[in-house]
Amino acid sequence: MKIVIIGGVAGGAKTAAKAKRLLPDAQVDIYTQDTHVSYSACGLPYYIQGNFEDYRNLIIRTPEKFQKDGIGIHLQNRVTKILPDEKKIEVYDLIKDLRFKVEYDKLVIATGAVPFIPTIKNVNLKNVFTLRTLEDGISIREKLRESKKAVIIGGGYIGLELLEAFVSNKVHTTMIENSSHIMPVLDDEVAVIVQDFVKNLYPDRTEVITNDRVVELIGENSVTAVKTTSGKVIETDLVLIAAGVRPVVDIAQDAGIKLGVTGAIKVNSRMETNIKNIYACGDCIENIYAMTGVPAWIPLGSNANKEGRATAMNVCGYPEDFEGVLGSAVTKYFGLTISMTGFTEKFAQKHGYDTVSVMITKRDKAGYMPDAENITLKIIADKRTHQMLGGQAIGCGDADKRINSLSTALLKYVTAEELSGADITYAPPFSTSIDLLISAARLLSEKLQK
Amino acid sequence: MKIVIIGGVAGGAKTAAKAKRLLPDAQVDIYTQDTHVSYSACGLPYYIQGNFEDYRNLIIRTPEKFQKDGIGIHLQNRVTKILPDEKKIEVYDLIKDLRFKVEYDKLVIATGAVPFIPTIKNVNLKNVFTLRTLEDGISIREKLRESKKAVIIGGGYIGLELLEAFVSNKVHTTMIENSSHIMPVLDDEVAVIVQDFVKNLYPDRTEVITNDRVVELIGENSVTAVKTTSGKVIETDLVLIAAGVRPVVDIAQDAGIKLGVTGAIKVNSRMETNIKNIYACGDCIENIYAMTGVPAWIPLGSNANKEGRATAMNVCGYPEDFEGVLGSAVTKYFGLTISMTGFTEKFAQKHGYDTVSVMITKRDKAGYMPDAENITLKIIADKRTHQMLGGQAIGCGDADKRINSLSTALLKYVTAEELSGADITYAPPFSTSIDLLISAARLLSEKLQK
Repeated sequence: MKIVIIGGVAGGAKTAAKAKRLLPDAQVDIYTQDTHVSYSACGLPYYIQGNFEDYRNLIIRTPEKFQKDGIGIHLQNRVTKILPDEKKIEVYDLIKDLRFKVEYDKLVIATGAVPFIPTIKNVNLKNVFTLRTLEDGISIREKLRESKKAVIIGGGYIGLELLEAFVSNKVHTTMIENSSHIMPVLDDEVAVIVQDFVKNLYPDRTEVITNDRVVELIGENSVTAVKTTSGKVIETDLVLIAAGVRPVVDIAQDAGIKLGVTGAIKVNSRMETNIKNIYACGDCIENIYAMTGVPAWIPLGSNANKEGRATAMNVCGYPEDFEGVLGSAVTKYFGLTISMTGFTEKFAQKHGYDTVSVMITKRDKAGYMPDAENITLKIIADKRTHQMLGGQAIGCGDADKRINSLSTALLKYVTAEELSGADITYAPPFSTSIDLLISAARLLSEKLQK
Repeated sequence: MKIVIIGGVAGGAKTAAKAKRLLPDAQVDIYTQDTHVSYSACGLPYYIQGNFEDYRNLIIRTPEKFQKDGIGIHLQNRVTKILPDEKKIEVYDLIKDLRFKVEYDKLVIATGAVPFIPTIKNVNLKNVFTLRTLEDGISIREKLRESKKAVIIGGGYIGLELLEAFVSNKVHTTMIENSSHIMPVLDDEVAVIVQDFVKNLYPDRTEVITNDRVVELIGENSVTAVKTTSGKVIETDLVLIAAGVRPVVDIAQDAGIKLGVTGAIKVNSRMETNIKNIYACGDCIENIYAMTGVPAWIPLGSNANKEGRATAMNVCGYPEDFEGVLGSAVTKYFGLTISMTGFTEKFAQKHGYDTVSVMITKRDKAGYMPDAENITLKIIADKRTHQMLGGQAIGCGDADKRINSLSTALLKYVTAEELSGADITYAPPFSTSIDLLISAARLLSEKLQK
C-alpha cells in the first residue's frame, strides 16, 4: 500500500506518523515544497519573541526520525498536479529542477493555508514578511533584533502574537486593522476590551490604528514606510502582513476536488474528498461545528492534529468518524488571555440563529486573594432551544479554564439551564464559590425564560 | 411569611440573602451559635498563611448589611430543638442565658459540619486547635506567629492547606495521617505523587508520617508533644486536628428528620427534608452525584452556595430542582494543584462499578515554552457503558483546567469516546496541540474497546 501525503506540517506529519504506526508495511511518503516538516508553526511567535533560543525546539519530528521510521520525506518537492485517473501525482523537485510522477493508493492533501496578501503597492520590497514557515520565523526574528520600528498589517491572532513579540523586544510597533476593532473574530464588545488593553499596556511603543488600510509601501530597496487609505505615512524598519490566511486548494480544485461553502476542501466525516482514495486534512479543509453541523473554516493546529489522526485511521482501514470541531481557540497578549469556543454572536446571527447572550465581569478567584483578577465572559445560546452556542472569555486571570469547561459541554449539546448546574472546582486560589461561568449561565437562563 | 434559618455561614447566609430578594416582604431570620455569619470558611487557611492581613476580608456580608436588608441576625443564639408540630424552634441565647421559642412558616437547617475529634488522651490541652470558625482561624494565626514547631493530625484538604500555611511561616511541621497516604480521598497512585511532592519541597521543615495515629497529647497546661500508636513522641508548640468533619445533624435527628446512608440529612431535589416545611442545605446534607445518582456526603463551599440558592427558590415558591453535584474539588500545596471531579476509582469500585482507567503524565503546554510543567491525569470510566465517572489531576501546571473540562461534560453523561472529541483551546502557552485530556480519553477509549 502506497500512502502519499502532500504537505508535512501538522495534518500531513500527523497522518504520516500515525499511518506508519497502524500499517508498518505501508509505504508512506511526504512531498512538500517546504524546507522543513513537522514543526510547531503555532510556536513561531514565541520563538520570534525570544521565549527560547533554538528554532529546532519547534521541530516535533526531524526528517531523519521520519526516515528512520520508514517514512519518505521529500523536501522542496512541490506537487504540481493530482491525476486521480492514473492515481498519480506530478512532482517538481525545486533543487534538482526535475519533474516526475509518483503513484499512490491513497492520497492525503494537507496543503495547509497561506497568508492572504491584500492589494498593496510595492508589496515585494525587502523586510516585508508574512509568517507561515519556519524560514519566515527565522527571518523575522533576525530582522526584529536590528529594528526600532515595525508595522503589523492585521489585528488577528497572528498579528496580536507578533505584536507582543515586537513590543517585548522594545520595537515601536503600529498595528493597522481595517475593521473597527482588532481581533475582529470576537464580538465587538469583547474585542473592544482587548483593544483597550493593548493600547494601554505599553502606550509608549504601541499604536493601534483601526478602520484604515495600508495601500502602499514606500522604500527603494527595503521598506521604510507604509501609507494608508486615510493618508497616514508611518515610518518602519519592517512590515509584517498578517491579514488572514487562505486555504491552499489550487491543485485539489484542478483535479476536480470539490470545495465547501467556505472555499476550503470539503470532506466527509471519514476525511474523504469527493474523489475516491483522496483524503484531506488540516488547514486546507472545511470544518463542521460539532454542536450544530454548520460548516466553517477554522484553520488551527489543534484541529489539524486531530484531523491528521482521523485521516490516518480511515486511510489505513480503521474507519473512524471525525465529528467536527468547536472552534475553541486561545491566545494571549502579555498577561491577557483571550479565549473562545463555538459561535460568536455575530457568527450565529449571520447563520440565522436567534440568539440570547449575557456578558459579565467577575473575579477569577476569591476577591481577598492578592492575585485575583477580573475576567469578562460572554456566553451565547439559541433562543428557541436554549442550546449553548458558544462563549468568549478575556482577562488576566484563568479565562481559558471557563472556555474549556463550556467547550467540553458543547460537545454534548448543553443548554443554558444545564450549564447553570455546572460543578466548577472551588478553592479561594482558583475561583469564587459560584464561578463566573455558573453566574453567567444562570443569568442567561433567566433571560431565556423571559 | 416567616422564614427561619439555622446557621449562617455559606448555605444559610445564601438562603437568607436570596430569599429576601425573592420575597422582600417575608420575615427572614438567621439563628446561629457562631459569633459571625456569612464568611468564607474556605479562605481561612489563606488568612492564617498571611496572604492578606485583615480577617474582615473574609466576611462576605456583615450582620449590619443583613440587617439593613431586613434580615434578622441572631448571633450566639443556639437552636436547641425543632418542634415541627408547633412549627417552632427552641433557642438558647448564649449571652443573655435565655431560652425562648421562635415560630416559622418555613425552616431551613444549615447547621454545617464540625471537625471530627478522634479519641486522643488530653485532647483538651491549650494550643490544640480545629479549624471551623472565623474565631478558630484568628486563634491559629496568632499562635502560629509565635510557634517554632507544629503537628497537624490528618492529611486531607484542610490539613494540607494548613501545612502550606505553617511551612511558609517557617514553622517545622509534622503531618500525621493514619491512612497509607496523605490526601486519602484520592486514588493511591495519585495521592503518592502529592505525598512525594510535599515531602520533597521543604524537607528541612516538613515531616510526613503515615500509617500512624496520635493517641495522646503531652503537656501540663499547654500541649508540648504528641505521642503516636507506634510510640513516636514529637515535640510541638501547637496541634491542629484536621481529621475530617462530620455533619451536624443532632437537632434535626431529634425532630424526626431522616438521614441518608452517609449520615447527613436526606433532602429531595427541592431541598425538602421528610418533614413538611423543613428544608436543609449546606454541609449538613447528603448530596447526590449528578452523573450517576449515587449518594455521597461532599461538604464543600461551592455546593453549599448552590444549595442555598436552590433552597431559597423552593422556600419562596419558585420550584427549582437541584440536580446534584459532581464532587469537583481543588486545592494546592504551594505550586502543586490537586484537583478532582466525580468518582475516584476506589469510590466507584466500592459502589459496585466495574471500572477502566488510565493515568498519563504530559506537559501542560508546548514543551518548548520555558514554563511548561507536567500534569498527571487519571480518568475513570464505567466498563459496561463507557460513561465517564471521574478524574483526578495534579501538577504544577494548570491541572484544574482539565478537571473542569471533564466535570462540565460529566453533567451530560459523556462517554470516553465522546470525550476524545473534545476541542480544548490550543496555543503553545496554554496546552499542547493534543491536550492531555484528549490523549487520556483516547487511551481510555482504546482500553475500553479491547
